Amino acid sequence: MCELFGMSANVPTDICFSFAGLMRRGGETGPHRDGWGVAFYEDKGCRTFHDPRASADSEIARLVRSHAIQSELVICHIRKATHGRVCLENTHPFTRELWGHQWAFAHNGKLPGVKKRPLSFFRPIGTTDSEHAFCWLLDQVRLAHPGPRFPRTGLEPLIRDLTADLGSLGIFNMLLSDARHLYCRCSTNLAWLTRHAPFGTATLIDEDLTVDFDRRTSPGDVVTVIATKPLTRDEPWITLAPGSFVTFRQGRHLVPSGRSR
Amino acid sequence: MCELFGMSANVPTDICFSFAGLMRRGGETGPHRDGWGVAFYEDKGCRTFHDPRASADSEIARLVRSHAIQSELVICHIRKATHGRVCLENTHPFTRELWGHQWAFAHNGKLPGVKKRPLSFFRPIGTTDSEHAFCWLLDQVRLAHPGPRFPRTGLEPLIRDLTADLGSLGIFNMLLSDARHLYCRCSTNLAWLTRHAPFGTATLIDEDLTVDFDRRTSPGDVVTVIATKPLTRDEPWITLAPGSFVTFRQGRHLVPSGRSR
Repeated sequence: MCELFGMSANVPTDICFSFAGLMRRGGETGPHRDGWGVAFYEDKGCRTFHDPRASADSEIARLVRSHAIQSELVICHIRKATHGRVCLENTHPFTRELWGHQWAFAHNGKLPGVKKRPLSFFRPIGTTDSEHAFCWLLDQVRLAHPGPRFPRTGLEPLIRDLTADLGSLGIFNMLLSDARHLYCRCSTNLAWLTRHAPFGTATLIDEDLTVDFDRRTSPGDVVTVIATKPLTRDEPWITLAPGSFVTFRQGRHLVPSGRSR
Repeated sequence: MCELFGMSANVPTDICFSFAGLMRRGGETGPHRDGWGVAFYEDKGCRTFHDPRASADSEIARLVRSHAIQSELVICHIRKATHGRVCLENTHPFTRELWGHQWAFAHNGKLPGVKKRPLSFFRPIGTTDSEHAFCWLLDQVRLAHPGPRFPRTGLEPLIRDLTADLGSLGIFNMLLSDARHLYCRCSTNLAWLTRHAPFGTATLIDEDLTVDFDRRTSPGDVVTVIATKPLTRDEPWITLAPGSFVTFRQGRHLVPSGRSR
């Protein structure tokens, strides 16, 4: 299985602290030695880093950890290969453009039989079941909304149903973004946490590192992080139930009615 | 105007030497301060780095220069913004998936009126005329070959005609790849060079750096580089004529009959 990590925030925020713990799981404190990748959104732009080598040994990972890239939306994946060989094209997150938005997708789990599902517009570049599932999902979204622009109606119900459908095939923990929202589907393991004022301190589980968010934030900042397993030992992480689906926008949890809470 | 750089090789090759000279043009020896980007292919995988900051100041550029990423096909662009604001989504090279291949595109020039051309499948994420031209071009390729797989017939004549059509609108120096071929269209400035045995030394124009390729290569290596202006002072660069189109595969120049020379 792989490690997933996502972030949604209302201000450009770096992921250096979380990334420090996460990267240790890629070959040191965890068994995920088969590459890693991350997508950072900056407005509509999306910057990705992919490395088929273990994150704990990766020069690119060291750059991402030290470089403090500021982003409002991040999807990160550390891979333990279960399907598809270890190579660049099989390294998550996968990206595709739809309606002039860059979509990014990362998956933890296995989806036996997903490759039998026919594809129409989007095609996998690599050989993973994950990328096939992403192409199928985005095909269905495009078929439901063939217009050239991002639809005005929220996509959350559609994406929730499509991810539930994929989840019926096997294990499907997933993070997906359309450059605005972070859609998250839990099959077995995902936990999230929103940081807002008053900010406190937090200590990583995987590395002996504590941060005082109060010294690094402004009072209006809202930052949500989501991960396969909690990254810190002293914050109130919410563990998602199997089969559940949550959406975040600008750091806030969108409840199904469309309002944020 | 911008600086373009491409490489096609028959063995994984790093671009550290060329990149050293090229990056100096991004804010030091050249006026191209509005970001840079590079796409490295590794088999079907494609790794991109984008930075809307000047390459001469970029930490990511220093990583790419020092990290010796091995690739058989590279497209690099240093931007002097003429159309579209300076931001991540307007930073070349642009990429899109077609037939399960990642395509990458970079452009130097201006194409007045290109945004009037209707798009069907691919949509720009940013606001540059370049990305609109890329989406239009890839739309036409997809319309000509709607099948789900990479066509068996060579795409070179089609892409030559499409780039000539776009070139009629203005200045269109362009590098394009489908993960196998490097397609190059010259409107005003492009020069190329193939390095093969016996290898010699070369000295950069923009930086006081000499490399002895004989010590860094094997006898069977064939490496072609193409750039807006020659990067070295002591090698036989071939300057392309305005309106010309060349294609490289595994380092070799493909002549229109499909054979390489």
